[in-house]
Amino acid sequence: MKTSIATVSINGNLKEKILAISKAGFDGVEIFENDFLTFNLSPKEIKKIVKDQGLEITLFQPFRDFEGMPDNHRTRAFDRAKKKFDIMAELETDLILICSNTSNISLGGLDRAANDFFELGEIARERSIKIGYEALAWGKYINDHRDAWEIVRRANHENVGIILDSFHTLSKNIDLNSITTIPKEKIFIVQLADAPLHNMDLLYWSRHYRNMPGQGDLPISNFMDALNKTGYDGYLSLEIFNDNYRSGPRNLIAKDGQRSLISLINKSKTKNKQELKINQIEFIEFAANEKNLKELENTLNALGFNEIGKHQLKKIKLFVFDNVKFIINYENTLLIEKNSKKGPYPYAYGININSLDLLFKQAELLDISLIKKQENLNLSMDAINHIDGLIYVIESNDNNIWEKDFGYCPSPAKNDFNVKIDHIAQTLNQDEMSSSLLSYSVLFSCKKSPIVDIIDQYGITKSQIIENKTQTFRMTMNGADNSNTIAGQFLKKTTRPGIQHVALSSDNLIALVKKLKKKGQEFLKISDNYYDDIEARFGLDFNFCNELKELNILYDEDENGSFLQVYTNLINNTFFFEIVQRINNYQGYGANNALFRIAAQKNII
Amino acid sequence: MKTSIATVSINGNLKEKILAISKAGFDGVEIFENDFLTFNLSPKEIKKIVKDQGLEITLFQPFRDFEGMPDNHRTRAFDRAKKKFDIMAELETDLILICSNTSNISLGGLDRAANDFFELGEIARERSIKIGYEALAWGKYINDHRDAWEIVRRANHENVGIILDSFHTLSKNIDLNSITTIPKEKIFIVQLADAPLHNMDLLYWSRHYRNMPGQGDLPISNFMDALNKTGYDGYLSLEIFNDNYRSGPRNLIAKDGQRSLISLINKSKTKNKQELKINQIEFIEFAANEKNLKELENTLNALGFNEIGKHQLKKIKLFVFDNVKFIINYENTLLIEKNSKKGPYPYAYGININSLDLLFKQAELLDISLIKKQENLNLSMDAINHIDGLIYVIESNDNNIWEKDFGYCPSPAKNDFNVKIDHIAQTLNQDEMSSSLLSYSVLFSCKKSPIVDIIDQYGITKSQIIENKTQTFRMTMNGADNSNTIAGQFLKKTTRPGIQHVALSSDNLIALVKKLKKKGQEFLKISDNYYDDIEARFGLDFNFCNELKELNILYDEDENGSFLQVYTNLINNTFFFEIVQRINNYQGYGANNALFRIAAQKNII
Repeated sequence: MKTSIATVSINGNLKEKILAISKAGFDGVEIFENDFLTFNLSPKEIKKIVKDQGLEITLFQPFRDFEGMPDNHRTRAFDRAKKKFDIMAELETDLILICSNTSNISLGGLDRAANDFFELGEIARERSIKIGYEALAWGKYINDHRDAWEIVRRANHENVGIILDSFHTLSKNIDLNSITTIPKEKIFIVQLADAPLHNMDLLYWSRHYRNMPGQGDLPISNFMDALNKTGYDGYLSLEIFNDNYRSGPRNLIAKDGQRSLISLINKSKTKNKQELKINQIEFIEFAANEKNLKELENTLNALGFNEIGKHQLKKIKLFVFDNVKFIINYENTLLIEKNSKKGPYPYAYGININSLDLLFKQAELLDISLIKKQENLNLSMDAINHIDGLIYVIESNDNNIWEKDFGYCPSPAKNDFNVKIDHIAQTLNQDEMSSSLLSYSVLFSCKKSPIVDIIDQYGITKSQIIENKTQTFRMTMNGADNSNTIAGQFLKKTTRPGIQHVALSSDNLIALVKKLKKKGQEFLKISDNYYDDIEARFGLDFNFCNELKELNILYDEDENGSFLQVYTNLINNTFFFEIVQRINNYQGYGANNALFRIAAQKNII
Repeated sequence: MKTSIATVSINGNLKEKILAISKAGFDGVEIFENDFLTFNLSPKEIKKIVKDQGLEITLFQPFRDFEGMPDNHRTRAFDRAKKKFDIMAELETDLILICSNTSNISLGGLDRAANDFFELGEIARERSIKIGYEALAWGKYINDHRDAWEIVRRANHENVGIILDSFHTLSKNIDLNSITTIPKEKIFIVQLADAPLHNMDLLYWSRHYRNMPGQGDLPISNFMDALNKTGYDGYLSLEIFNDNYRSGPRNLIAKDGQRSLISLINKSKTKNKQELKINQIEFIEFAANEKNLKELENTLNALGFNEIGKHQLKKIKLFVFDNVKFIINYENTLLIEKNSKKGPYPYAYGININSLDLLFKQAELLDISLIKKQENLNLSMDAINHIDGLIYVIESNDNNIWEKDFGYCPSPAKNDFNVKIDHIAQTLNQDEMSSSLLSYSVLFSCKKSPIVDIIDQYGITKSQIIENKTQTFRMTMNGADNSNTIAGQFLKKTTRPGIQHVALSSDNLIALVKKLKKKGQEFLKISDNYYDDIEARFGLDFNFCNELKELNILYDEDENGSFLQVYTNLINNTFFFEIVQRINNYQGYGANNALFRIAAQKNII
């Protein structure tokens, strides 16, 4: 299958769009009519630009309100179509999309529509043009691909076929088995779009919220499974209407689109083969300079970490607490310049994956940027050059890396607290979220939650959970909408996306917090009013609730179990730590408590 | 009636919210529970802040999932309520909102709910607390105020009443007559919210899109009419959930809220009294300096305007074309500093209204800033200090003002073109739109269209039409989302909202354009591809369409008639002129053509 995208999916004038689409690696482009009409070059000149960029025009679209018109309007509909056929001849493209009629004056009836298509098919045949009929989810009479297919079947004309669009089918939850019986040669092109789940008018949802396959909540892979059963091997073409894409970074958006398609095609091909997987987060790396190194060491010590070793060659130290490894890098002056007042901060993390070899192959296929250690003497591991910063990668069977570099051999004996990394929380701009998410899903097949609103006192932070299938890798991705929120202030300070907090887990949070408090660690003061409320809300035991209050531990429940969480104060007004305890397989991240955490942080700043 | 607002309606911490609410002039404040829970002061300390600001706590809200709970959960619901009563005692407030149950485990039945409320009413009576029951539009069993009222009626307890909320009633289009029969003493408080019409899930719509009465599309005035029939004279209280308000300017939003309520209360009082009205736009004023005066004069001459006179005292010239008056002000060095390279631009306009006296009264009532000529020697007219710039006001019977200042007496004879001002187009930031709109609706009872999206190649510009009832005053308000759109570039250049274009109308546009072209006026070049399309789309006569193409005139139709429009090129890359002809009472503004205009402007920049 080859890849294509409609010009409406990204911003710019027609030429800028074509250039970005070519640069992103697509094989073809759908010309969205308004992009053509508003552009001040002739069809022949436009055709030349497309060809010079090595692209094929896969589709000219949309042609609206054609079938089922009453007599007095029918002639004009045919005249309009002929005009468009003229333009298509000059563009040298042979496929037009006719979407199902939405006009109030149109008439129903499958045979009437089939006759219209047969008649237009005859005209199209003379000009070697193919007509693809698509059911809009909000078409007046035809709003289901099964009915569109019945019309195409009855039209029974070699120049008339169907166009499938994942949004129109999946948004209405239409049985996907109905796709599997369409002959592949009658599927003239397939359009793909995903979307976050919103319970709203289909037209409004479609025009504002579509996104790239994998970025939304629609079951695109089920759609692809059904399509693959037909044997279809033509173009997969993105048609995305998204408010953010209309002003967002054109080249990045196009690149994300191409990645999402390549990933889908690749997954269809390699079913049952080995998948690339994240096993867990191996370590977090903090940047410091010689000036603020001591400050960070004290912070980590107070949190229960001990310095285990120094790198044999570089200015890098390893701190460990139970199963958690933190690295301090005070060598790389690029991270924090020597005399910078910028405090230390977490700037990268390492993941343990099942196969480096597979990562290299996938990254090449998906055009994801890697920094290989052979090519960069500063690195002792390979790394993904990600929008959120560096992600180091270690293969799971390379257990010796810690011993080699730091002489550190993790002991099998665990202490009482069984401290692990529960999750990391990345903060980035809201409009970068979907792009960042995509690399976790296409590379590592991570799953994601729907996006939820975190109410900050000064704005809304969007939050989404990303996890591997076994939940041994967990991350929250937080998108800031302005610079006054806690998330926005992080971006303002660090001037780049990254890890805003690291959440550790323990099997015995209350005891751990008591121990750390004794050692001098301070925790974020939560409003007393909160504890009055949760005591009644969850029916908590008075003494237990009082203990939570004293220790500033937040509480939540889900249908499985309960959740304890505690925060440190903001460090350098930038990042912070969380410690959680998941009791009886609690699945969430305490989203209900986020506004209390944020308000408490604001009280201090 | 007195005014109140829920703390959830604006951003900040609880203290910042209370201060802004007091500053805006409200009489009372609803404490939204999360604002209380996240705030690090005790109920008593919060009460003190509220009292010190001269406010009354009108309501403590919301209390969720109370009525109809099965036995094992019922006790906890009552315990929770008692806890809240304790807090209310310390806050010294007596009214709590209980919203209808949304829990899946709750049970239906009016009597069951009524019994629950009676029992809670008994507890509340002992503590002098009143319980207001509100039907959420998405409540599990109770989602209609008529059912909530039936439960309150059956509970038959003096401490139990109903709370009405315009959103919950109007979003479901519930018959408003059902309000008129509720005894006013059983209506414990009335919440007001408007919203733009969106066909989406009620809960999502309510939580993200509510706005101030008059800013949305709900028939708030019908709701008020029904309410007034009950004789209700308690608080009107705003409860607004709006994504933009969560980060927007707190004081301005609160002030807008207070204005919207005062306007509603005032309209209820003054039914059948004289209304303040705009008759028409009297003139547009352009700023120039001595350096670029000539440039602007040439621009106006090319457009058909003639210099009629100079102000007898100031550096102000009057240019006239048929019925249209443009003023050039090159005296006020504050507008464009002498040596500034900033080109001339339209910066103010004058309106002709029915009563200055009424304006002064209304402006005082609504706290709208005026600059009176007696108090400012630079002004020869009174003016409204509006978010979009100055709006001069002239009373309709003051016809001599032009003769007095410029010795100009409009001649009754009109030339062939009958040129008038059709509308002005204001450009501002998207999040300023609702505030700007509000002053036109509360002051002058202007009506507005729903907001539509104008697709710019580099973003989305939101557009809304504002008209007086007779359509003799017309304006489009365009909200930019970023600085790359044509609207956004205007804001970047002018650094303030204002008039981006002035649209003149003519009875004979084609002849006028030909005449102006001969005199050297250039018009914006529209893509040839556009004309191929409209010929087929509207079934236009070939020769007529060809003439439009030659003259770069755009075409549109609505169900009444047709529309011709032509644009000048951008002047100083900032503002431009449009000339339109409305044939057979065409009502629109050519919104379908906006993307062609914008693309053509981008082709030139």
